[in-house]
Amino acid sequence: MTGITENIKTLETKTRVIDVINSISKKKYNAMKMFLEGEEFKEAVVFGVYLWGNYVAQNIKNFCDKVYLVDIYEFLKDLIPNDNIEFLTLNDFKLKLIKDKINPDLVIDITGLGGIDPNFLKKFSPKIAIIEDPRGVFDPDIYELDNTYKRAYSINSEKVGILKTFRKAKISKTSGTMTLTIDTIVDASKEISSLDGVLYAIPNLKYYEGILFHNGNIKRFLLELSKPAIIISSINDVINEAEKIIENNLNLIYSFIDEL
Amino acid sequence: MTGITENIKTLETKTRVIDVINSISKKKYNAMKMFLEGEEFKEAVVFGVYLWGNYVAQNIKNFCDKVYLVDIYEFLKDLIPNDNIEFLTLNDFKLKLIKDKINPDLVIDITGLGGIDPNFLKKFSPKIAIIEDPRGVFDPDIYELDNTYKRAYSINSEKVGILKTFRKAKISKTSGTMTLTIDTIVDASKEISSLDGVLYAIPNLKYYEGILFHNGNIKRFLLELSKPAIIISSINDVINEAEKIIENNLNLIYSFIDEL
Amino acid sequence: MTGITENIKTLETKTRVIDVINSISKKKYNAMKMFLEGEEFKEAVVFGVYLWGNYVAQNIKNFCDKVYLVDIYEFLKDLIPNDNIEFLTLNDFKLKLIKDKINPDLVIDITGLGGIDPNFLKKFSPKIAIIEDPRGVFDPDIYELDNTYKRAYSINSEKVGILKTFRKAKISKTSGTMTLTIDTIVDASKEISSLDGVLYAIPNLKYYEGILFHNGNIKRFLLELSKPAIIISSINDVINEAEKIIENNLNLIYSFIDEL
Amino acid sequence: MTGITENIKTLETKTRVIDVINSISKKKYNAMKMFLEGEEFKEAVVFGVYLWGNYVAQNIKNFCDKVYLVDIYEFLKDLIPNDNIEFLTLNDFKLKLIKDKINPDLVIDITGLGGIDPNFLKKFSPKIAIIEDPRGVFDPDIYELDNTYKRAYSINSEKVGILKTFRKAKISKTSGTMTLTIDTIVDASKEISSLDGVLYAIPNLKYYEGILFHNGNIKRFLLELSKPAIIISSINDVINEAEKIIENNLNLIYSFIDEL
Ligand SMILES: Nc1ncnc2c1ncn2[C@@H]1O[C@H](CSCC[C@H](N)C(=O)O)[C@@H](O)[C@H]1O
Ligand SMILES: Nc1ncnc2c1ncn2[C@@H]1O[C@H](CSCC[C@H](N)C(=O)O)[C@@H](O)[C@H]1O
Ligand SMILES: Nc1ncnc2c1ncn2[C@@H]1O[C@H](CSCC[C@H](N)C(=O)O)[C@@H](O)[C@H]1O
Ligand SMILES: Nc1ncnc2c1ncn2[C@@H]1O[C@H](CSCC[C@H](N)C(=O)O)[C@@H](O)[C@H]1O
Repeated sequence: MTGITENIKTLETKTRVIDVINSISKKKYNAMKMFLEGEEFKEAVVFGVYLWGNYVAQNIKNFCDKVYLVDIYEFLKDLIPNDNIEFLTLNDFKLKLIKDKINPDLVIDITGLGGIDPNFLKKFSPKIAIIEDPRGVFDPDIYELDNTYKRAYSINSEKVGILKTFRKAKISKTSGTMTLTIDTIVDASKEISSLDGVLYAIPNLKYYEGILFHNGNIKRFLLELSKPAIIISSINDVINEAEKIIENNLNLIYSFIDEL
Repeated sequence: MTGITENIKTLETKTRVIDVINSISKKKYNAMKMFLEGEEFKEAVVFGVYLWGNYVAQNIKNFCDKVYLVDIYEFLKDLIPNDNIEFLTLNDFKLKLIKDKINPDLVIDITGLGGIDPNFLKKFSPKIAIIEDPRGVFDPDIYELDNTYKRAYSINSEKVGILKTFRKAKISKTSGTMTLTIDTIVDASKEISSLDGVLYAIPNLKYYEGILFHNGNIKRFLLELSKPAIIISSINDVINEAEKIIENNLNLIYSFIDEL
Repeated sequence: MTGITENIKTLETKTRVIDVINSISKKKYNAMKMFLEGEEFKEAVVFGVYLWGNYVAQNIKNFCDKVYLVDIYEFLKDLIPNDNIEFLTLNDFKLKLIKDKINPDLVIDITGLGGIDPNFLKKFSPKIAIIEDPRGVFDPDIYELDNTYKRAYSINSEKVGILKTFRKAKISKTSGTMTLTIDTIVDASKEISSLDGVLYAIPNLKYYEGILFHNGNIKRFLLELSKPAIIISSINDVINEAEKIIENNLNLIYSFIDEL
Repeated sequence: MTGITENIKTLETKTRVIDVINSISKKKYNAMKMFLEGEEFKEAVVFGVYLWGNYVAQNIKNFCDKVYLVDIYEFLKDLIPNDNIEFLTLNDFKLKLIKDKINPDLVIDITGLGGIDPNFLKKFSPKIAIIEDPRGVFDPDIYELDNTYKRAYSINSEKVGILKTFRKAKISKTSGTMTLTIDTIVDASKEISSLDGVLYAIPNLKYYEGILFHNGNIKRFLLELSKPAIIISSINDVINEAEKIIENNLNLIYSFIDEL
């Protein structure tokens, strides 16, 4: 695409924001899969729909007879594309729990900072539990708010895994899929700006959480995520180098499980 | 504003993208004003509407009897809010020039990379001329494409100034108002991410040049520029520190004129 | 001091490399002190002399009747300035242990990567144990080599603390005092280079571990550490800003203990 | 080389500090050579011995019958290894000039900030003159002190070239060989630290200008420059990647001549 003048091209990465999110979700899920290797479950519950709860739920369905996906917000249900898995609000889930209608042998908590109450987790005795640790590089207030290990010690399970996700030798304040997505795209933009002939590179980001949580607009949320991750103003066609830079930045993300 | 969970706030900077643009335009204009100090002109012509041509034109109107603002794109006329100054397409301007209806004593060229043809500038003999140098830190292809000094030597004027704009000890590939705006906002976001309790900071940027030049949608262009520059997800209310970080980054921008 | 020409000054920071080391040691020790608060011990053993083992040993002497400082290298003994505390090689320590001459109620292990064997720690049943976690931001190979938690679970103690040290929102690959010292000084140098009028700033670092471990030259080791941390070539006298930048970088270092 | 423990290696780059300096000098000289292409000279004078004056002088000797290398400091003479070229102090040079014993047809000024007086250059009418511009990325005080263009306009020559040297999309405050050497080595160290298994990387730098100008110790100056540029503490043998990183950083340096 021609830019302002003939000499300046506009380039949009083929990589969309959603591709970055999916790539990160996959890494996180792969760490889980390795930890769950060979096991099968009757009843699994995943706490937290946003941002990759559905990704987890769909995938563990392969070796879980029943999968519940639980969130405090009912409208997030619309992020779940099929009825493979059952969405429940936290309240509905609690009702079922009281009535002994649910007794999960796999508990997965991706609710992160300010999410699930450690005391609530005391009610469960699954074969395996996995808690996502929201912490990235050190931040005094995030580390203080975090209670991952308190949750991990609350749950009555023989095998508890802590899911950790980091960018190798890069700074991200949390392991949240959104944080990692933003930091990956912004850092890649900076690198792309250094390529010969590039005038500037725009990290094509929006405040997606606002669209989803404040406006409850799932359609627009998904639409915005399908936009190109980075837009480049350049003399040269650097699109291949740009895609490679995004890929390299994605390769810096490592997800693994530390067993308690 | 509450974020996803109670503990996480969403903060939007009061500083909008347009505020950053205006602050940069002002610095550039101040460098010009100092260079033009005390002079008065009968007929001034400014080449290039985007991104700060109107800002220049409105301001020099104070000491120029007549100001022409010229661009190759007619639709950019709608960026000019009043009839203080006269917009002309490059073609219309050339017609007037042929008919000797224009003979500017002040020529300002902010068209930058791939802009005005050095040969075209040979037609002018103004008292003073100013050419904006689009170059930032070294880039082999941008430096090759640039012909600022060729333009400067083409024009028949006793006093020729080269307008230069840099970020102090920071990397920007051009002096373009858009480049500086993006780099300022992205760098400020990175710094804000380091503040205690911040999960992430989103540079709230769009590909404005696409909205303007490809879609020709001036209304949406202005609307998008009026959005907050940075959106922050944070445990603590860091909005004052965030505004200060943007201000500090703006203070790194220096604009000055080198006389030929 | 005048530099090459009259206009260029040479500035040396008053802060020496050893001051940075001591400041980091103090932070680490303060985290320990808080964890040990109010306790008193009969017999404490600190594993690892380098780089802050002596600092720990001297300080805990205030509330420990007897302090052993143990290392595999005998020559490190010369880093211990007085006979408050007793240095032992690991071999001598093991002999005493076999003969039941030692039964520590406080065990501190700062040996880090490739240091003490987890199995060896099984021999101890102290009231309190502290293990220093050598990990900084994520690195796949460092995280794999690390066995801090294995050590922590090996020791037979009711209260086990893991000492962690990080730079806030900055990259350091380990928590080692030397790593943090180098990264602090290099990052401060980069910042100092950005000050107005600074031509360059040299992180005045040597490979101190070579001088100590390969050459066994303790005197030169200490001499080199007493050199100014940063040397600056500058038009302006920026020494106060420079010291402040080092201080700010030191303030990014946080040390704390996570109880097992 | 084994580091502190068996698992940690010590690696020294084969690239020495002097190799970085020579590589930069070569780039600068190549820019000159291209500008002088095909010309031959009777009498050339190079102002400034430090840091690459001798490199220039030795090389232009191939197409200059006589080469003078001039500096204010007599002791720098010892940096000149052979008698191909004639060293003169500025005073001795001025005497010869007064007596009309010198009338150079090539003048090269690499004295940079605070160097040669523009008025002094008025005395020369060479066929070609080259002035090294000491400026790097924008710094208000360095740009103010600089008088490269004043010098260029003072000299009475038809062909005047301004030698510029930059790091592509990287920050260096000057084009000085020492500044570029330090920034290249420090930036490469930072990159090397990010490699898998690296604990830390030390830029192995000293304040060479102090050794040379304050102590006048040329032997130690050369000895120190022959040390490895970077020393690495690492689990893995990353020496090849490390050398490659230094090479890539050297490739960012561009030197070229802008004709006045
Ligand atoms: N107590 C609770 N029970 C169930 N869901 C909860 C919860 N508290 C918060 N949530 C949900 O958990 C999500 C928190 S955001 C989680 C982000 C995730 N760790 C990632 O990396 O992408 C939101 O969808 C929120 O609505
Ligand atoms: N030959 C020409 N005559 C007039 N305007 C031109 C031109 N070539 C390009 N332009 C206009 O000049 C502008 C180039 S973009 C200039 C950006 C500006 N230097 C800044 O810092 O913001 C566009 O509006 C483009 O349409
Ligand atoms: N098994 C062992 N017993 C005692 N000392 C050991 C040891 N293995 C290594 N050491 C010593 O422990 C030190 C390792 S370096 C430790 C660095 C320290 N964590 C810091 O932050 O400064 C060296 O002095 C080494 O000789
Ligand atoms: N007026 C003068 N005449 C000759 N040499 C001078 C001078 N003023 C300074 N010098 C010398 O010029 C050198 C300045 S340092 C020059 C650095 C060089 N541009 C580089 O990139 O490496 C020193 O050797 C200094 O002694």
